[in-house]
Amino acid sequence: MSLGLAHVKALSGIVGNENIYTDKAHLIAYSYDATRNRFNPDAVLFPRDEKDVSEVLRYCDKNGIIIVPRGAGSGFTGGSLSVKGGIILAFEKHMNKILEIDMDNMVAVVQPGVINMELQKAVEAKGLFYPPDPASEEHSTIGGNVSENAGGMRAAKYGITKDYVMALRAVLPNGEIIRAGKRTIKDVAGYNIAGILIASEGTLAVITEITLKLITKPKFTKTAFGVFPSVKHAMSAVYKTFAEGITPVAMEFLDNLSIKAVEQRFKKGLPMDAGAILITDVDAPVQNLLDEQMAKIDEVFKQNGCNEFKIAKDENEAKDLWFARRNCSQSITVYGSKKLNEDVTVPRSKLPELLDEIDKISKKYDILIPCFGHTGDGNVHTNVMVDGSDKKQVEIGHKAIEEIFRAAVDLGGTLSGEHGIGISKAPFMKMAFTDTEMNLFCSIKKAFDPNNILNPYKMGLD
Amino acid sequence: MSLGLAHVKALSGIVGNENIYTDKAHLIAYSYDATRNRFNPDAVLFPRDEKDVSEVLRYCDKNGIIIVPRGAGSGFTGGSLSVKGGIILAFEKHMNKILEIDMDNMVAVVQPGVINMELQKAVEAKGLFYPPDPASEEHSTIGGNVSENAGGMRAAKYGITKDYVMALRAVLPNGEIIRAGKRTIKDVAGYNIAGILIASEGTLAVITEITLKLITKPKFTKTAFGVFPSVKHAMSAVYKTFAEGITPVAMEFLDNLSIKAVEQRFKKGLPMDAGAILITDVDAPVQNLLDEQMAKIDEVFKQNGCNEFKIAKDENEAKDLWFARRNCSQSITVYGSKKLNEDVTVPRSKLPELLDEIDKISKKYDILIPCFGHTGDGNVHTNVMVDGSDKKQVEIGHKAIEEIFRAAVDLGGTLSGEHGIGISKAPFMKMAFTDTEMNLFCSIKKAFDPNNILNPYKMGLD
Repeated sequence: MSLGLAHVKALSGIVGNENIYTDKAHLIAYSYDATRNRFNPDAVLFPRDEKDVSEVLRYCDKNGIIIVPRGAGSGFTGGSLSVKGGIILAFEKHMNKILEIDMDNMVAVVQPGVINMELQKAVEAKGLFYPPDPASEEHSTIGGNVSENAGGMRAAKYGITKDYVMALRAVLPNGEIIRAGKRTIKDVAGYNIAGILIASEGTLAVITEITLKLITKPKFTKTAFGVFPSVKHAMSAVYKTFAEGITPVAMEFLDNLSIKAVEQRFKKGLPMDAGAILITDVDAPVQNLLDEQMAKIDEVFKQNGCNEFKIAKDENEAKDLWFARRNCSQSITVYGSKKLNEDVTVPRSKLPELLDEIDKISKKYDILIPCFGHTGDGNVHTNVMVDGSDKKQVEIGHKAIEEIFRAAVDLGGTLSGEHGIGISKAPFMKMAFTDTEMNLFCSIKKAFDPNNILNPYKMGLD
Repeated sequence: MSLGLAHVKALSGIVGNENIYTDKAHLIAYSYDATRNRFNPDAVLFPRDEKDVSEVLRYCDKNGIIIVPRGAGSGFTGGSLSVKGGIILAFEKHMNKILEIDMDNMVAVVQPGVINMELQKAVEAKGLFYPPDPASEEHSTIGGNVSENAGGMRAAKYGITKDYVMALRAVLPNGEIIRAGKRTIKDVAGYNIAGILIASEGTLAVITEITLKLITKPKFTKTAFGVFPSVKHAMSAVYKTFAEGITPVAMEFLDNLSIKAVEQRFKKGLPMDAGAILITDVDAPVQNLLDEQMAKIDEVFKQNGCNEFKIAKDENEAKDLWFARRNCSQSITVYGSKKLNEDVTVPRSKLPELLDEIDKISKKYDILIPCFGHTGDGNVHTNVMVDGSDKKQVEIGHKAIEEIFRAAVDLGGTLSGEHGIGISKAPFMKMAFTDTEMNLFCSIKKAFDPNNILNPYKMGLD
């Protein structure tokens, strides 16, 4: 598809000449995301406000022009890629403001282009706290976070983006504006439209304003680190900690391959022969509750084979303990030039079985699959490592991925804990959902977007 | 509508003769809910399992027979009433089992007919906790709670039903079975179908299985009670407590009329000249955190005019403090034979303004409007008291209600915090939602239920 001059002129008339780009450099700049796939859009538009969004959508709906809303382009599954051209709607230029931090009701109101970390900093400066912390927090936007229902490290205790969205304003594909939800804990009037817009990957409506629940900033935090002889031991320690009634903020994991990769690269003195490492953060509003939780974690870890348990004495030591986890993703590239990176999730108690299955798949295909991630919420980042220049190996890698998805789904888990479906996981939707369920998704898509102009060819719906 | 013999025979063939009633006594027994409206259904069916539900729905969809799913019939807005006949689908006979309490993942799996309090007791016996506690907890069912997104006293700290639903199984009107959500904190594959089924009042699908998140049972709890010179003082104390970073489990309120009514009826020595009373529960996993919270509440209350603050010394004293609140609803009938009972909700900081508006409306119409309720989450139960035999007064009462709704909506609040829309609030939907929003609701209804057989004539959609 290519955008004719008449359309460009009409759209310029809506947003102003300075807010539409059709030159090659800009089209390339908005062509990619973290999947490293590239699809050039036909134009990039920067709406100034909700009215612009409404008018642009109305025009595009009438003229059958595809619209792809885009946050920071940090997604892992291609949700913001204009796979068949059309217009990228980008919010970072104008619709990027924190509109309100309401201390009395502990609520923030933001535009979609606000960067996650900016919001975190702004509310923490006022003693409040916005928990969702995707790894992309430094650059990903709240609009993107809501559209993909972003998770993060703190999900084990504090939940994910959906748990903080109280209300939305959004524009339907036909240009009409809707409000969904309220600045109240309780609201049961009408269907839960905000609930279905979250995680809809920009396929149902364009979100123009987000009202978020905030909580009080935790006063005391502590980090600990446990070394385990095997992945199985570590996974047991994870779910047994929670089953004991302790809810750490984060409970992160590295397997032996991940540990070795970080050590090879950074020489930090990590235990190269360890089967797995768990890194955990706890927080509390009073000191003795913090200590009580940490003592219990120490106990549960040791009952599950932990042979080294270390509590950080200060923030620097905590940073050291977190170093391995934070540098996993970049380090494991020592195992192959291409990383097929997935984020399957299972109920916590199924983690030992999941990791067992992944080990079998690794052996079956003679391929390395370093694993790390957010085990506190059952979310494992599996990385099938292949030589990107070896077509056959890449093919084998994709087979392995398919088997990992199958294992997760069979264990009551999901294809995606936090990355979304986009285009990367679209081929696997039929593994996780029945025809009836897929048809229902399509009916809902049609109810919102009868002309299919809003981010089509995503989520396996087309 | 009346159900012909052929249909009765066919449906008996599905569920068995013993699970279908068409006799008058049973039709009457299933004709009402807490609104005291009565609409006889044409039959009452007790499905034995999901397969029965599926076959009944498939048959009814083909034959244009209305289906109204029903929990305990404790709803306040007529959601479970068969307003134009059809079949009541009742779950209390067979589909009333707790299927699983999964200690490792802190999850319960239940059938829709399980009574809320039974679930609470079962999980508390295992050291776990299911927070949603609607006033109807002794008899309302989890299926009904999910369909209406029930709230309760503990919502201020622990949220409402939707915050605990992890996954659902449900049957679409055409008889097809769907699963939505997972037993995992994170799951972003596909549209959030569970999210939209919650609070949909049985209009989209029939829920057949519910997977609920559980939390650890709080170890320490304490109750306190504050007397205030005016409603405005009390309302300020409410939102300022939360804004100080304290999150009580419950923060309940009685106005002067409510206090007087309870005192008149039960002679408990309540302060008859108090403008308002606040009753609050706090909990914590350690004793000092409990004490710290209570000290802060004491401080904030006194800063806001509280002239008597009392902490319960033991469970009996706590029960005494709660007595007034628990007996409000029945006591206020001293003011009129008919109670037009609503549950408007506003952002907490807007409570003083809301109560001010209600006071004005009361004066304008010369009508008593005792108020009490869950102020901790901004949810006020307003009770417009009229003489039920006086048609004109009832009419005036309804006008007052309309103005209360308008005030709540204008303050950024909602028509209903926890009772739902059903038929009672259906006429007011257009006050709260635009035509665009109402049309979107209708499109969603159609996507699930194209033949409109599932609980029609509800939520203002027809």
